[in-house]
Amino acid sequence: MEAQLRMGIIGGGPGSFIGDVHIKAASFDNLAELVCGAFSTSQAKSVQSGELYRLNPERVYASYAEMFQKEAALPPEKRPHFFIIATPNHLHYEPAMLAMKAGFHVACDKPVAISSIQAKEIARTAAETNRAFLLTHHAAGYPAVMEARAMLASHQLGKIRKILVEYPQGWLSQPVEKAGNKQAKWRLDPGQSGMAGCIADIGSHAFNLLEFMTGLQVQSVCADLTSFVPGRTLDDDGSILLRLSKDAKGMMNASQILVGEGNDLNIRIYGETGAIEWHQEIPGQLILRYPDKPTQILNMGVNTANHTITGHKYARLPTGHPEGLYEAFASVYRSFMGNIRKIEIGENPAKPDYPSVNEGIREMLFIEAAVRSSEKGTGWTYLE
Amino acid sequence: MEAQLRMGIIGGGPGSFIGDVHIKAASFDNLAELVCGAFSTSQAKSVQSGELYRLNPERVYASYAEMFQKEAALPPEKRPHFFIIATPNHLHYEPAMLAMKAGFHVACDKPVAISSIQAKEIARTAAETNRAFLLTHHAAGYPAVMEARAMLASHQLGKIRKILVEYPQGWLSQPVEKAGNKQAKWRLDPGQSGMAGCIADIGSHAFNLLEFMTGLQVQSVCADLTSFVPGRTLDDDGSILLRLSKDAKGMMNASQILVGEGNDLNIRIYGETGAIEWHQEIPGQLILRYPDKPTQILNMGVNTANHTITGHKYARLPTGHPEGLYEAFASVYRSFMGNIRKIEIGENPAKPDYPSVNEGIREMLFIEAAVRSSEKGTGWTYLE
Amino acid sequence: MEAQLRMGIIGGGPGSFIGDVHIKAASFDNLAELVCGAFSTSQAKSVQSGELYRLNPERVYASYAEMFQKEAALPPEKRPHFFIIATPNHLHYEPAMLAMKAGFHVACDKPVAISSIQAKEIARTAAETNRAFLLTHHAAGYPAVMEARAMLASHQLGKIRKILVEYPQGWLSQPVEKAGNKQAKWRLDPGQSGMAGCIADIGSHAFNLLEFMTGLQVQSVCADLTSFVPGRTLDDDGSILLRLSKDAKGMMNASQILVGEGNDLNIRIYGETGAIEWHQEIPGQLILRYPDKPTQILNMGVNTANHTITGHKYARLPTGHPEGLYEAFASVYRSFMGNIRKIEIGENPAKPDYPSVNEGIREMLFIEAAVRSSEKGTGWTYLE
Amino acid sequence: MEAQLRMGIIGGGPGSFIGDVHIKAASFDNLAELVCGAFSTSQAKSVQSGELYRLNPERVYASYAEMFQKEAALPPEKRPHFFIIATPNHLHYEPAMLAMKAGFHVACDKPVAISSIQAKEIARTAAETNRAFLLTHHAAGYPAVMEARAMLASHQLGKIRKILVEYPQGWLSQPVEKAGNKQAKWRLDPGQSGMAGCIADIGSHAFNLLEFMTGLQVQSVCADLTSFVPGRTLDDDGSILLRLSKDAKGMMNASQILVGEGNDLNIRIYGETGAIEWHQEIPGQLILRYPDKPTQILNMGVNTANHTITGHKYARLPTGHPEGLYEAFASVYRSFMGNIRKIEIGENPAKPDYPSVNEGIREMLFIEAAVRSSEKGTGWTYLE
Repeated sequence: MEAQLRMGIIGGGPGSFIGDVHIKAASFDNLAELVCGAFSTSQAKSVQSGELYRLNPERVYASYAEMFQKEAALPPEKRPHFFIIATPNHLHYEPAMLAMKAGFHVACDKPVAISSIQAKEIARTAAETNRAFLLTHHAAGYPAVMEARAMLASHQLGKIRKILVEYPQGWLSQPVEKAGNKQAKWRLDPGQSGMAGCIADIGSHAFNLLEFMTGLQVQSVCADLTSFVPGRTLDDDGSILLRLSKDAKGMMNASQILVGEGNDLNIRIYGETGAIEWHQEIPGQLILRYPDKPTQILNMGVNTANHTITGHKYARLPTGHPEGLYEAFASVYRSFMGNIRKIEIGENPAKPDYPSVNEGIREMLFIEAAVRSSEKGTGWTYLE
Repeated sequence: MEAQLRMGIIGGGPGSFIGDVHIKAASFDNLAELVCGAFSTSQAKSVQSGELYRLNPERVYASYAEMFQKEAALPPEKRPHFFIIATPNHLHYEPAMLAMKAGFHVACDKPVAISSIQAKEIARTAAETNRAFLLTHHAAGYPAVMEARAMLASHQLGKIRKILVEYPQGWLSQPVEKAGNKQAKWRLDPGQSGMAGCIADIGSHAFNLLEFMTGLQVQSVCADLTSFVPGRTLDDDGSILLRLSKDAKGMMNASQILVGEGNDLNIRIYGETGAIEWHQEIPGQLILRYPDKPTQILNMGVNTANHTITGHKYARLPTGHPEGLYEAFASVYRSFMGNIRKIEIGENPAKPDYPSVNEGIREMLFIEAAVRSSEKGTGWTYLE
Repeated sequence: MEAQLRMGIIGGGPGSFIGDVHIKAASFDNLAELVCGAFSTSQAKSVQSGELYRLNPERVYASYAEMFQKEAALPPEKRPHFFIIATPNHLHYEPAMLAMKAGFHVACDKPVAISSIQAKEIARTAAETNRAFLLTHHAAGYPAVMEARAMLASHQLGKIRKILVEYPQGWLSQPVEKAGNKQAKWRLDPGQSGMAGCIADIGSHAFNLLEFMTGLQVQSVCADLTSFVPGRTLDDDGSILLRLSKDAKGMMNASQILVGEGNDLNIRIYGETGAIEWHQEIPGQLILRYPDKPTQILNMGVNTANHTITGHKYARLPTGHPEGLYEAFASVYRSFMGNIRKIEIGENPAKPDYPSVNEGIREMLFIEAAVRSSEKGTGWTYLE
Repeated sequence: MEAQLRMGIIGGGPGSFIGDVHIKAASFDNLAELVCGAFSTSQAKSVQSGELYRLNPERVYASYAEMFQKEAALPPEKRPHFFIIATPNHLHYEPAMLAMKAGFHVACDKPVAISSIQAKEIARTAAETNRAFLLTHHAAGYPAVMEARAMLASHQLGKIRKILVEYPQGWLSQPVEKAGNKQAKWRLDPGQSGMAGCIADIGSHAFNLLEFMTGLQVQSVCADLTSFVPGRTLDDDGSILLRLSKDAKGMMNASQILVGEGNDLNIRIYGETGAIEWHQEIPGQLILRYPDKPTQILNMGVNTANHTITGHKYARLPTGHPEGLYEAFASVYRSFMGNIRKIEIGENPAKPDYPSVNEGIREMLFIEAAVRSSEKGTGWTYLE
């Protein structure tokens, strides 16, 4: 049995949504325990969250800088192994850098930063400090996504031709940021979200899913970003043509104004001899198509070992018992923690099977290229 | 009871697929009867088809020009009222023009011609000769499409923001045109198909569905057309960004290399206060979305009068009894024939509730703009 | 090319629904032409329908007995080959018997009669007079149903264990028969419908689908029939356990009070090594399940010859172009007419691949057994 | 913030599936911590599991009787509050009784026991000892199930007429119990499973879902239980007609030999004015039907407060982010722990909004009635 890791968190205070998801996910398999947190820059709010998570009050902070300093000074058996960063985009870079330099591994919410320059520095620092880094595109943790990735890695669809990736949301179809919705407010504020709104928030998920699943790279984009709701300075919608490595092409529809849509991040990948389709809203299922055979529905589950390479490894329940976002999130954490353990005992970490610093650089290059392309009138724009 | 109309056909000979669909559809409601045909330029083949349709051998021709001449000379009670044109794209313009000038109404397969210049001449001639013209984008005949059109015409979704339209097919994912598939061969031959392959063949359907259903106009396109299968000179795939009237935006995915896909022409229309989704493969259903209400599934049927304006008018069966392509096709013919009747008795025809000459011009402008945009590297290109 | 057959109809007058479906279906492939009709016992109404179908007024009748007599006296080249019976249940037996005795083949709506005794006499008379007989359970004409039947005939699922068949409807969930709905009224009137309501009307469809598709025979039933809506004397709902030949078991849910349901007649058949599912509301699709393979979706179409035995024969359109009830109806008529032709030229007819007299006897035995079982408190009751 | 509860477990040793699910679920919200366990009667195996869960070795036992004795003797701040019972059916009664008598609350896997007599004693003892009791029919924890329950409690569908409930599984379609599948082996062994196989294992889930969601009571059953796979003494399939309180009727299909099926426990409830459908495999969704309105798809989520009473309370994520079995399981534990807290501080517990002892009695009466009905040839048999 592996020893339990200790973790701390930056962000996740009262009113936050994703902080608690990180904590539940990292704790899901009983492989990590929360020991400290800087939940908020308000001491009172941070204390409130600290109590919720039953933390020792002495290890609850209003400043992550102070937290890193004090926690790093603790003896090894008390010191956290890694920190979760669950703050708005503009507050990823500095805590990530400080944490790694203080000796901590880092699990950071997406997108990794607000520029590719920051992303590259994060990557360089992770390498220099030999710290594991998890970029929490949780979709990478769904068994079906890992299964599709394995199928594509072994070229089961032939040469890939066309990829259609979408993240349709509807929650920003009305100006809720003016009605007190905090989640909406910071995402539409350039000071906190960075140069992009929708494309940074969920376009990054779609982009990561595409590159993570296929192993292809988006080389250039032709983007039409829009702010449909009056008064917004950042995009709430993006329509993007894609050109990828190995002559593949693609389209991305990422939007937050698609009335009535929830979170059906989805992808369709068409190769010469087969196709794969996946939807987050029915996450346990892959739809497989072939030129001259019936369409197949492959359902993930621990009991489907005979027809799936990776389902057996990433699924937790028998086929048909639904698994969801928490479990996917837990699985990327589990893989990340596996690498932490290796590093802590002086071994070389495995090549990440979870999104990490390179994926962070790639997504920032994508966001920047999409914004540049759209600003100049939707011409082809290279990543980099 | 309305008198039965008489019709003839150009094309539809042995090995043809769509010719027989036209004839069955136009005959479906017992409102028209086939009386003559130039099924093929081979006299033997034309005779073969003529026998299949139980035609008088004297009214079976190998030349449409000859057919128009001889049939026009018949007495009124024998003379056809309209001709169906079911030939490859390059053979639409001339027979359409000759037919109208000879006094016949015309039902023409899509796309209407191989250039917008031809399309405009057809439109001018239809106006000058006062002939009814049906462009057989059959999707316009599905009750759900008409229902959606009525909902949009009465602004039930608020201002339209984003439209996603797709026609995914897979039958050209392999080079079947080299393996004797005649349907594939002419569609990929610039001499018969015109300047575009996939975009002319099914992009035109997607385009028409979008404009017909929404009443919006595509103003400019940013297109990336591709020939994925080696050896093709025409596109077998198109990825297109759209800008529409009234500040709406859109994306079109029309492709014939999407392995395993059949004919699921589909559209999603998102407005400020509601959204509509329709799929040809489940044609009797509209999916309706709202910001703060459950998603709704509206099933067409003659018995759904209480919640649908137009289902009652265009559906033929009670809800749940599936209707298909033939019935949709029959319905556009029925509307077209209604206008023929009016013209024949000297009345003004109704504003067409079926695709007609203006839709033909629009689709040719779209095809031309998409080709120009793609050739010049995917910049925004205006229709016209 | 086959000569066109001539047909007449009993029933189908103003306000009828299914009569017109029969006529359109039988005419669909241009293989038959309506020449006479006794649409109604009201001369005025019959004339009204006759005009709608453009009949010679001399061949429009108010009495089917008179019609058979006069039409039988016509010269062979004018005389109808067959009659459609599209009247309420209690008016199937007599016209069917008279028509066959007068030399005509018969296409009769379901259920074949109002008792098994009548059904057996019809069968005997059909044999004695050598007349073809079609019982229009149209579901037998869907390509997917024929495909499933072929798969089962070749034992592709192993020994059959359990069958679940349903016909859920909702149109009688309210007392519409008291609000002027004529379709509802006669179906709930024992004088016209016979001993059963729902079970006769749609239970018969479910029963036929089960036996026709599987080749198994229902041997005994354990039925709980209910009249949920107050004031009804006939059942509007049936819940039935089934025991079948070869040790298979089953359940039938046939109901007309399932609020919001349309016409999703459906069946699931589970064998030792595979399973098949079919739904009328998505009629072109078979869902296939296996113990250790992904679920398969098999879509019918003329182009799916490589993975389907019978799709190629019964489908009319490429995969994904929806076909519906009219086409299924047309296909059972086409097969029936094939046998008429054979008989007319003195050949032996083929073993019917459409429901015929034996299916009529079977369904009446089923209805009778279900009623008996329910009346005596839901014990096992044998068919016969 | 509520104090964390302490829990122990009986069962869940190496090779067990459901024990770990219980522990993860009870820990999900950080409201309980595992402190002791009798995972197996083998000391070595129990130790192995104890290490996995990082337990103090002194609190790992091979005998639950010993565990209850020793743990009860611990000081209050160490003593567990409740025990999880995750053993085969025949080992529910004794540990449940002992645990309650030793002062512990109990969470017990389903079915509650192997006879209604046992179930009633458990209920009596729970009352006498004032212990909270959770029967882990986890489906009760899905937000959509709670939503449907609330809708039915407020009579939103009118008087209920017909209910169709199913639990289709396929994992026992082959004789896997002879091939070393331990899960299969005990479930098909009368010594461990009790008088029924499939009906006890998953029929109990279907039954509980029906009564829990609707508030109706099954009064009598007409059951046909079968052992399809040769060599089995217990049923692997059940087809059951149901009669319920308030004149409702129903059908249950519970089977473990339905090839290719996973775990799609599902229910359809039809009332006079509306209908509800729910499927475990798409657990976040309710399908609502009405006589004269479109079908509605109601998706659960914390953000759907405006159109759902209970979604807001039981959902954890925004609409469209999938939640699964673990979360549902966690929610029934959360409610159960709420009552433990109340009892511990001397308050009256709330009326359970989770399955408890009464549900345990009901399910045993159902299982017994189904077995009796089937044995005597499928006649109506009352519960009790």
